[in-house]
Amino acid sequence: MKLLNVNKPAGVLCKLNYLGESTGDFKIPSTKFQKKNNLCQLVKFVSNQNVYMTSILKSKDMDKNMTSWVKVPNDSDFSIHNLPFGIFSVDKGNKKIGIAIGNQIVDLFAIADQGYFNDLKVDKDVFATNYLNDFINLGKSVTNAIRLKVQEMLSDKNSSLLDYTKVLVAQSAAQMHLPVQIGDYTDFYSSIEHATNVGKMFRNPENALLPNWKHLPVGYHGRSSSIIVSGQNVYRPKGQVLPPDANSPIFQVSSKVDFELEMGFIIGKNTQLGESVKTSDAEDYIFGKVLFNDWSARDIQKWEYVPLGPFLGKSFASSISPWIVTLEALAPFKIQGPEQDPKVLPYLSYDGLKNYDIHLEVGLKPKHGEENRISKTNFKYMYWNMAQQLAHHSSNGCNMKVGDLLASGTISGKNVNSYGSMLELAWGGKKPITLSNGEKRKFIEDFDTVIMRGYCKKGSIRVGFGEVRAQVLPALN
Amino acid sequence: MKLLNVNKPAGVLCKLNYLGESTGDFKIPSTKFQKKNNLCQLVKFVSNQNVYMTSILKSKDMDKNMTSWVKVPNDSDFSIHNLPFGIFSVDKGNKKIGIAIGNQIVDLFAIADQGYFNDLKVDKDVFATNYLNDFINLGKSVTNAIRLKVQEMLSDKNSSLLDYTKVLVAQSAAQMHLPVQIGDYTDFYSSIEHATNVGKMFRNPENALLPNWKHLPVGYHGRSSSIIVSGQNVYRPKGQVLPPDANSPIFQVSSKVDFELEMGFIIGKNTQLGESVKTSDAEDYIFGKVLFNDWSARDIQKWEYVPLGPFLGKSFASSISPWIVTLEALAPFKIQGPEQDPKVLPYLSYDGLKNYDIHLEVGLKPKHGEENRISKTNFKYMYWNMAQQLAHHSSNGCNMKVGDLLASGTISGKNVNSYGSMLELAWGGKKPITLSNGEKRKFIEDFDTVIMRGYCKKGSIRVGFGEVRAQVLPALN
Repeated sequence: MKLLNVNKPAGVLCKLNYLGESTGDFKIPSTKFQKKNNLCQLVKFVSNQNVYMTSILKSKDMDKNMTSWVKVPNDSDFSIHNLPFGIFSVDKGNKKIGIAIGNQIVDLFAIADQGYFNDLKVDKDVFATNYLNDFINLGKSVTNAIRLKVQEMLSDKNSSLLDYTKVLVAQSAAQMHLPVQIGDYTDFYSSIEHATNVGKMFRNPENALLPNWKHLPVGYHGRSSSIIVSGQNVYRPKGQVLPPDANSPIFQVSSKVDFELEMGFIIGKNTQLGESVKTSDAEDYIFGKVLFNDWSARDIQKWEYVPLGPFLGKSFASSISPWIVTLEALAPFKIQGPEQDPKVLPYLSYDGLKNYDIHLEVGLKPKHGEENRISKTNFKYMYWNMAQQLAHHSSNGCNMKVGDLLASGTISGKNVNSYGSMLELAWGGKKPITLSNGEKRKFIEDFDTVIMRGYCKKGSIRVGFGEVRAQVLPALN
Repeated sequence: MKLLNVNKPAGVLCKLNYLGESTGDFKIPSTKFQKKNNLCQLVKFVSNQNVYMTSILKSKDMDKNMTSWVKVPNDSDFSIHNLPFGIFSVDKGNKKIGIAIGNQIVDLFAIADQGYFNDLKVDKDVFATNYLNDFINLGKSVTNAIRLKVQEMLSDKNSSLLDYTKVLVAQSAAQMHLPVQIGDYTDFYSSIEHATNVGKMFRNPENALLPNWKHLPVGYHGRSSSIIVSGQNVYRPKGQVLPPDANSPIFQVSSKVDFELEMGFIIGKNTQLGESVKTSDAEDYIFGKVLFNDWSARDIQKWEYVPLGPFLGKSFASSISPWIVTLEALAPFKIQGPEQDPKVLPYLSYDGLKNYDIHLEVGLKPKHGEENRISKTNFKYMYWNMAQQLAHHSSNGCNMKVGDLLASGTISGKNVNSYGSMLELAWGGKKPITLSNGEKRKFIEDFDTVIMRGYCKKGSIRVGFGEVRAQVLPALN
């Protein structure tokens, strides 16, 4: 815990510094409080400003010596430093909120039912729910306290949870569900590498980026009804396409189904109409992140998208990973973003580290054959960061609601093995990729399974997202 | 009641014909049933296919002699032939479902509480609710039966409702709320006159319509969080705009705020992922219609919309009228749509009357001055009808959810006084319109109020939408 100014008198406002970032004004607690409580606990009581609290509490996450009495495999995304939230059920029973640890799920309803959250004054019924929205809506002061309480219980060798049969569920025995009810879904287009590749293929190779691209994070509204959780399969869409050299379209099964490797973030705090979120406040409004596959039908998209943007080429399905990794768990993996030139307008400017070092990869498993890793990239390359996306989205007064999903757009790296879509990997069909079983792919074929994974790593500490997986099935009649 | 084939034997399947449209196969009920029940009631029992039932039940609506013991002014949109559904509250009390009649609201919870819906086996709690979604989700067999039961009670001179103090609320004493929780909002672009006008101004006057326009109902996803009910005011948005002849954008308060005269329809029945709705079945999936003002900031829109479509130029607000007029109430006002040339693809082709003869008008009331009627047009001009929009939207397997809103796009007529936006009425600012107080308008100014109205009329029978009204307030800091 690096609390630089803690030797000041109680009651004084001072700046804290955590991992190189100022946490802003912080009221120094009384000595009595300081002695009675360890600092992490203490901050809960004295700060009513969530951002300070959570910034400081995160320090506990990074206690490298912290381990859990729950067995966590070395390569697990769900270390004790992570503890993401999700919605699970067992044997088609009621849905509940869980936290992932290793190969297990901590049943938060069961913990609440045993009274362990009584001091937090959280009604246990909030954990027996179809979606995380109401829980998230309690605010970070509560959701972070819950997460840290669970972390404490999982790390304590004498934890009262040790009778784990009551509170732990094997992930293999559980079904995961859509974690949030998504009111609105917005898709950005924030990878300069992806936007450049698409611009080269679809428009002008000389001026691949359109004039607005470096001035604002281009985005558009997507379809929220068709967002499905990892594991649910996708029917190949039908639609209007314009055959090469034809004047009139035909209606057919799409022959250019594609994935898009994206990450999404979940809004954690409502805003009102007319209100705008500053880049410096954006993290208060973000609950956490997920992996996201924004399925696309390139042939449908190409014919329909001028002038009002993508519609049916996208709205047949998007897949989301089931575990929402909190911004607090990701804080240690913040990193400097790319330089933005030209300089952005003041409402988009930002201080500090706003990108995240998240390793990403895409696997493709054909019906007959093993999984092939077809792309490997990193979220850190994104030109526009989440704080800028949220500031831009709300700059016109558009209101945000808890559970809204804002996705990054396709995440591509600089080299050909780091592109985030088949469109780019096989360059519009011109450079098919070869799988380990000898089959070639220009786009995704029926019964192909696409798997995306993502994780952060610093030393021996790993915080990851698990996977988002879906198989493409033939179109329904 | 024009039931052409009723003289066939009981059990036989035959076609019915109602207002020129075939209702499809219909099972002739037993003579016993025919005698015991009047035909309208009868159909409830023998047909399990809502479309037949509702087509036939509508005949009762058009009994021209039907009147109500509730006083209904001659020019009221809310005649006994209409009976739209909405959500109201009184004195900041709980929200409930109501039906509009004249200047009154029928409190459906109060009626249910007195046991009048007991035969329909509907739990009274469904009427004490923030949104109509759960009610709509009961299906047309229930919602139509409720509406017809209320119609019967309002028309019966000996109605047990005559002690109206218990079930009627003056509209002037009630507050109306957003009628449905809108999961997804889609905006089409289906007026050929509007698309042509915009194409002329923004793109190429010679080829104003883009190549796909006559082949599919162009549409895009909109923002649902910022849809507000009539009466709620709108803050002028801020955003990035590119000044004339500039190379770099600036961030400022929009100077080109505009309205868009639209109508929307509310989805009444869920579909599953992968499922597509046929044009012939579309009416089963549409609960009813509303007036809709899709506020736009033309300067923000112009700079941002290529290549992914409108985003912040639209998402600051859209206004919806509070009463949802059912498709059954609108059925007598069906009319032939414009000829579609070139012929559309089979999945978009349709039989029968799918357009609606709905008179529309827009009023603009400046801060200091009376309301000016600045546009008068009709919904019947729409090139693409609702059945085609829904068939197209679901053609790729995108699922629809009860409460989703699909809007028409700006509704413009052929002449300059029938355009549905300031952009067109003042032709991009080149032809300002003059108000009765001498002020001129290129776009909407602060404190202007925009009011849209719509109604159907056949003889003395009027079925209307009331109004959607909002005042534009200065941008928040």
